[in-house]
Amino acid sequence: MIQPNIPESDRPRVVIVGGGFGGINLAKALKHAPVQVVLLDRNNYHLFQPLLYQVATAGLEPDSIAFPLRGIFKNQKNLHFRMAEVKAVRSEENVLETNIGEIRYNYLVIATGSNTNFFGNNQIAENAIGMKSLIEAVQIRNYVLKQFEESLLLNDERLIRRKLNFVMVGGGPTGVELAGAFAELRKYILPKDYPELPIHLMNIFLVEAGPRVLASMSEASSVNTLKGLDFLGVKVLLNTAVKEYDGTTLKLSNGDTIETQSLLWSAGVKGFPLEGFPDSVLLPNGSMKVNEVNLVEGYSNIYAIGDMARMLNDERFPKGYPMVAQVAIQQGAQLGANIKNSLRGKVMKAFRYKDLGSMATIGRNRAVAEFAGIRLSGYIAWIAWMAVHLLNLLGFRNKLVVFINWFYRYFTYDRGTRIIIKRGAANIVKLGKTMDQTTASNI
Amino acid sequence: MIQPNIPESDRPRVVIVGGGFGGINLAKALKHAPVQVVLLDRNNYHLFQPLLYQVATAGLEPDSIAFPLRGIFKNQKNLHFRMAEVKAVRSEENVLETNIGEIRYNYLVIATGSNTNFFGNNQIAENAIGMKSLIEAVQIRNYVLKQFEESLLLNDERLIRRKLNFVMVGGGPTGVELAGAFAELRKYILPKDYPELPIHLMNIFLVEAGPRVLASMSEASSVNTLKGLDFLGVKVLLNTAVKEYDGTTLKLSNGDTIETQSLLWSAGVKGFPLEGFPDSVLLPNGSMKVNEVNLVEGYSNIYAIGDMARMLNDERFPKGYPMVAQVAIQQGAQLGANIKNSLRGKVMKAFRYKDLGSMATIGRNRAVAEFAGIRLSGYIAWIAWMAVHLLNLLGFRNKLVVFINWFYRYFTYDRGTRIIIKRGAANIVKLGKTMDQTTASNI
Repeated sequence: MIQPNIPESDRPRVVIVGGGFGGINLAKALKHAPVQVVLLDRNNYHLFQPLLYQVATAGLEPDSIAFPLRGIFKNQKNLHFRMAEVKAVRSEENVLETNIGEIRYNYLVIATGSNTNFFGNNQIAENAIGMKSLIEAVQIRNYVLKQFEESLLLNDERLIRRKLNFVMVGGGPTGVELAGAFAELRKYILPKDYPELPIHLMNIFLVEAGPRVLASMSEASSVNTLKGLDFLGVKVLLNTAVKEYDGTTLKLSNGDTIETQSLLWSAGVKGFPLEGFPDSVLLPNGSMKVNEVNLVEGYSNIYAIGDMARMLNDERFPKGYPMVAQVAIQQGAQLGANIKNSLRGKVMKAFRYKDLGSMATIGRNRAVAEFAGIRLSGYIAWIAWMAVHLLNLLGFRNKLVVFINWFYRYFTYDRGTRIIIKRGAANIVKLGKTMDQTTASNI
Repeated sequence: MIQPNIPESDRPRVVIVGGGFGGINLAKALKHAPVQVVLLDRNNYHLFQPLLYQVATAGLEPDSIAFPLRGIFKNQKNLHFRMAEVKAVRSEENVLETNIGEIRYNYLVIATGSNTNFFGNNQIAENAIGMKSLIEAVQIRNYVLKQFEESLLLNDERLIRRKLNFVMVGGGPTGVELAGAFAELRKYILPKDYPELPIHLMNIFLVEAGPRVLASMSEASSVNTLKGLDFLGVKVLLNTAVKEYDGTTLKLSNGDTIETQSLLWSAGVKGFPLEGFPDSVLLPNGSMKVNEVNLVEGYSNIYAIGDMARMLNDERFPKGYPMVAQVAIQQGAQLGANIKNSLRGKVMKAFRYKDLGSMATIGRNRAVAEFAGIRLSGYIAWIAWMAVHLLNLLGFRNKLVVFINWFYRYFTYDRGTRIIIKRGAANIVKLGKTMDQTTASNI
């Protein structure tokens, strides 16, 4: 009974798997192309991942960083969106297997992004918390607020420490931004909301295996970031790796241990490969080998972009491009132009990443930013960070809601969305037999 | 190990169960009283229930109508909040049993509000959807959007109708407001987001057993409301009761059937009684018999307010006051004053409800309102409705976010928060053993 119901067309069909930065920019670039675009995503929204950490730390409502994909493309007549989980590719038949049936393609673009990478450490994978999806960020917010509430019920200092210590692993932008936001929770929210809790029992740690934080930026920015984190009271442990974590005690490579029930892992990401490809095109981190026009090695009509693509033709990036939004955005836009070129019989143009710079916020009035040879830090970098993020956020409503949250937080030092959304024992929705199991249990 | 950890005090302790309209107004009224106030709620936020229907219909983000209880009382030094599920009362010992341990009280106030009442019809209770909590509203939003997405995958018209027909049961303000909001989804969102879906297959029904909608208001307002619903295309069935509902087919008392997978039940509410009371004080609808100062019949220090209280001393309301926010607010405030009186040795003053009027919105530019002998309808009532709701919403941030959503929706006809928040198969958070089961599964 279930079938994708995508109207057949005389035009070649471009199927895009994933509505992230790469997928939506590719789809937009194909707006006036003589193709039929089919966009698939497991969610019905595009997620603005760079602000996920603010949802996790009760600074923004989840809805403010998610934008309905149907809204983005409501004026694009050649695009059909379907909410679907893609299972596998049968490339010899040009068919995609999904949970809503089989979908034929002429061009297939894999833009599935990445997920948390625990590098095969099952003990850590089981006990640590990743943050790559909206539901994960909401769960972290619920979990963190619950630790505060439950700490009030304890008398044993060691158990309280376990609940109030928060450890971020990975000194990249996500780890730094999370650590900064947790430190601000400690500084501005804890004393007001929980005056009974001894603040010295709450500590924020940032653990980084390498010699510096924000290693992709300049030495000066790393130093600035360290100073900012130190000012906020974050304990940064450099050249330190995680050895073991059983859910309550973290063992570090330097022999130290930290008691914590909250290990937030942002030390790595890996691709989301589809089934149906030979091992030869898949890399250990789950991404796929592509040529200079994002064509997957050995295929003539299957492309991968963004975090899923490993492109090695740029001498500046011998190990491939970093897994960042800008690469996905640029590859999406250029692949769109290239598909249009190929339809007109022109050759595709090789992709070359244009580094627009990078930035990270540490906390109130503190950020670091580098672009076009300019290095900023402190207040001006923080303003630049906010402006860039607001401008890139999709949708007028979302921009306004995020702006108001920031404005409000700046002047009140408050975080408005510190609510725990859970089902109470007494008011579980009666979701009947006709509702899918997934709807009933997986909010 | 777990215990409430509420500091002992020489002052009498007032324990308030429930942070709804009644509970928070009582707690506020006790700010400068020589008592220790202990506020318990299963959630860490106060919910502004009158706007719940807008969350359910993708018009507002859940966070905008929830306000952290700790934020409300951050400057009230005599108040201690604990997130707790209250199980039972041992009134002979003045002790409350909760999931965080036992709590002693001098005054106990039951302000637990109400839940959906299916009047003992188990088949309907199993298959219909109630809307009394934030998680229920979010689940309805997810569910409704999922019906739209899944309709696209079907060819059988009967199955599509099942997914696109939405039936509200109960012609009170909640039913009317939900029906109006669904009709607006149909009118403004469906054609833009789902141009492939035939709009005539989506129908909104409002089923009311009595002879008119908004029966608590004037005949003229009922007529106005009917006209407004008719304009929006809502099919209103008066003098019609629900007989049976198996999850896909609804049988009505007039012999008709409606194919629907979405039956939203707002035909009644019932109290949330605590264990430990004799049947003699509990009424069939779960509320408790109280005297004119909200004292529960037969007790000297246990009070019930709001939806939980049935007060019969007012000759204007021989069956007791309606279960509305205003009664809870006024009873909370007055019980606070009365507890202060009793501590000064004065007698408590009898409660008398001051009806401030009532209002309901039907849709864009359409509402009905009645207060102080004045009857409004149409645009001016709609503006009044928005002003009253904005002013009563707690918190500057929430007011701004709600205002922006309304402003945006008014000019764009769009609904910004139409996102489905669910766990994807591939990115379930790894919530380890140390996280409580409730945190892991009950977002």
